[in-house]
Amino acid sequence: MNNILRKDADFIVKQAIKAVQPDAAVQRALKGKEFAGRVVLVAAGKAAWQMAKAAYNCLGTRIEKGVVVTKYNHVMGPIGNFTCLEGGHPVPDENSFLATQAAIDLVSGLQPQDTVLFLLSGGGSALFEKPLIPGEELQHITNQLLACGADIVEMNTVRKRLSAVKGGRFAQLCAPAQVFSIVLSDILGDPLDMIASGPAYPDTSTGAQAWDIVKKYGLVLSLRAQACLDDETPKSLPNTTTQVTGSVRQLCSAAASACETLGYEPIILTDRLACQAKEAGSMLASILKTHGQENKKIAFLAGGETVVQLTGKGLGGRNQELALAAAPGIAELAGAAVFSVGSDGTDGPTDAAGGYVDSTTQSTLQAKGINVHEVLNQNDAYHALQACDGLIITGPTGTNVNDVAVALLHR
Amino acid sequence: MNNILRKDADFIVKQAIKAVQPDAAVQRALKGKEFAGRVVLVAAGKAAWQMAKAAYNCLGTRIEKGVVVTKYNHVMGPIGNFTCLEGGHPVPDENSFLATQAAIDLVSGLQPQDTVLFLLSGGGSALFEKPLIPGEELQHITNQLLACGADIVEMNTVRKRLSAVKGGRFAQLCAPAQVFSIVLSDILGDPLDMIASGPAYPDTSTGAQAWDIVKKYGLVLSLRAQACLDDETPKSLPNTTTQVTGSVRQLCSAAASACETLGYEPIILTDRLACQAKEAGSMLASILKTHGQENKKIAFLAGGETVVQLTGKGLGGRNQELALAAAPGIAELAGAAVFSVGSDGTDGPTDAAGGYVDSTTQSTLQAKGINVHEVLNQNDAYHALQACDGLIITGPTGTNVNDVAVALLHR
Repeated sequence: MNNILRKDADFIVKQAIKAVQPDAAVQRALKGKEFAGRVVLVAAGKAAWQMAKAAYNCLGTRIEKGVVVTKYNHVMGPIGNFTCLEGGHPVPDENSFLATQAAIDLVSGLQPQDTVLFLLSGGGSALFEKPLIPGEELQHITNQLLACGADIVEMNTVRKRLSAVKGGRFAQLCAPAQVFSIVLSDILGDPLDMIASGPAYPDTSTGAQAWDIVKKYGLVLSLRAQACLDDETPKSLPNTTTQVTGSVRQLCSAAASACETLGYEPIILTDRLACQAKEAGSMLASILKTHGQENKKIAFLAGGETVVQLTGKGLGGRNQELALAAAPGIAELAGAAVFSVGSDGTDGPTDAAGGYVDSTTQSTLQAKGINVHEVLNQNDAYHALQACDGLIITGPTGTNVNDVAVALLHR
Repeated sequence: MNNILRKDADFIVKQAIKAVQPDAAVQRALKGKEFAGRVVLVAAGKAAWQMAKAAYNCLGTRIEKGVVVTKYNHVMGPIGNFTCLEGGHPVPDENSFLATQAAIDLVSGLQPQDTVLFLLSGGGSALFEKPLIPGEELQHITNQLLACGADIVEMNTVRKRLSAVKGGRFAQLCAPAQVFSIVLSDILGDPLDMIASGPAYPDTSTGAQAWDIVKKYGLVLSLRAQACLDDETPKSLPNTTTQVTGSVRQLCSAAASACETLGYEPIILTDRLACQAKEAGSMLASILKTHGQENKKIAFLAGGETVVQLTGKGLGGRNQELALAAAPGIAELAGAAVFSVGSDGTDGPTDAAGGYVDSTTQSTLQAKGINVHEVLNQNDAYHALQACDGLIITGPTGTNVNDVAVALLHR
């Protein structure tokens, strides 16, 4: 039985991660999509090269030209006639600005029937930027915001107004052409105005709010920067269509589909998990115990990004802690397993993607003199899971859309 | 909207607690039940008087005689011709033994068609006892077990064998009569051999296991006690029927029914919740956020008993912490509410049964300068909830079957 469960877990992990690869995600978003006029491509972010490559594989020379902006050492080779550029991350540099200008030039002079295929991934905030004030002052304002303890929403509200491409402005620059935006989301809940500061998404914040923040913290701004605050960002972008793909939501639904393939009834509890890793593991075990009497194969799924409470100096990661913490709760619950993986294949500072436990784990560890409670206090889940063949190793996966935890009941 | 949600919450709490009152629980278990021969009643535990009173209200003089054994000051008046006795708890005393003997005498000489109506509740382990060795040695063995760090399962495995009524032996004493056992469960998962040490439930532990424990810890036992270990407890009790009632499971299902009455689709996640209170609150909020887009009224329920991590010196309880911790997660999620109550009406050292939060709670508290995160670090949920009308006050309820937390989505 537990061999079957482990095999099921490995299959589910593989399928889920496959579904959120940049190439798979872009292919899915482009499926059946047809374009009327000219098509040009702009890709920005850490996964820009993979996304552009996937789009090129789908559409080939239907894409007339392309500009790809990614971080240093992330261009893996030429893509058709696209211009592939690299820039600074996490701090933008002159190359980021030049690459962004190349993208702006590309989308100029298009007609209403034309389309800008805009591929966005995490890291785009630094890589895709054209400041409206000198870079030096932008850095000075950023430093002031950091020093006064402004939160990320406040920071973005001010900084979007100091950029020619953020807060929906890049989509404005594309007009009258259509923008078809494909977003690979690395933030829980897919806040589209936050991912890379939303170059092609309407901005919900206002200039008045930006002024409130400036006054609240007593920020020092040049007259030029002050004028920027008064220049409102777009509140609607009728030329833009956005498709989020490869987010934790897709990671969960791909895991759910894999569960279904194996005969489990999948129940996605949440894709916004943000609590303590080990407590989430305990709660998933509680859920399995309650449903343990039912005579059917069920899978409960929870995606998101848990946190680890550091109380020791061991080796582990949030996915390993989550899984291990479920072991005592499902001890002796035949047919039960809990596993959790990070979609990037790297859980904490380890070579494991996550952890797997089942009804035998607790007794296996006990027989080796390992106490789960103590291990968790030491944050040493890696070694405990290693001792019971509970590590899930995938290697780096080339994507990063948070984690998914699955609780299986096999009947 | 939020007035409706609060009203819904109060209705659900009221219905759930009503369903697990000892009298309601006993009435439900006896509904439609018919007895052939003579009927005698034995009730033991902290809720014995209420349970016996309810049975008397149902069956009246159909019950020929009764013996009620409860703790001091728990007999509230006469019940028909029943003998109501009080004894020591949590440490059994001579009155516990005398009362138990009166029960044994009552069930002697019955015929196969007769029935012993056996009503059991928490605390029965001390109140219902007839030791097979002198009380002094029993205490000595208990002390040895405590000193060597034996766990509760090990303690019970040894002690059941030193008792004439525990580990299913009381049901044996009732034979050839039938035993209809109604159990009010106060332990998660309703382990029937654990509640009051299972006087009318087959014992799964063995004499060999008891000997292993004696050897493991080097316990000192008299020859008489050693002989007891060899005398096996019953592994099946064909004359006994057991009905668990008024457990946390019933608390959850009554809450679920109340949700259904109000038009919510109820989903019972678990009745075995045992993680940290505030993390459970965070996870319920995550679940609501994920399902917030669905256009239907849903209620997620989680029963059990969470734990509080003490990091401050404020006032609160596990239910109040759970609810308050959900507030940031559901802030601005229209139609969302999370509440949690203890079925005994007393959450922690407070006059509240639990707490209630909705999508407006976070901003209400912020406007008053109250930071939820800091409040939770201070374990001061009571005062924060008080400041936003989030306390749920029921007064003592007369029952205690753990807690239930509910996450509502109103559409």
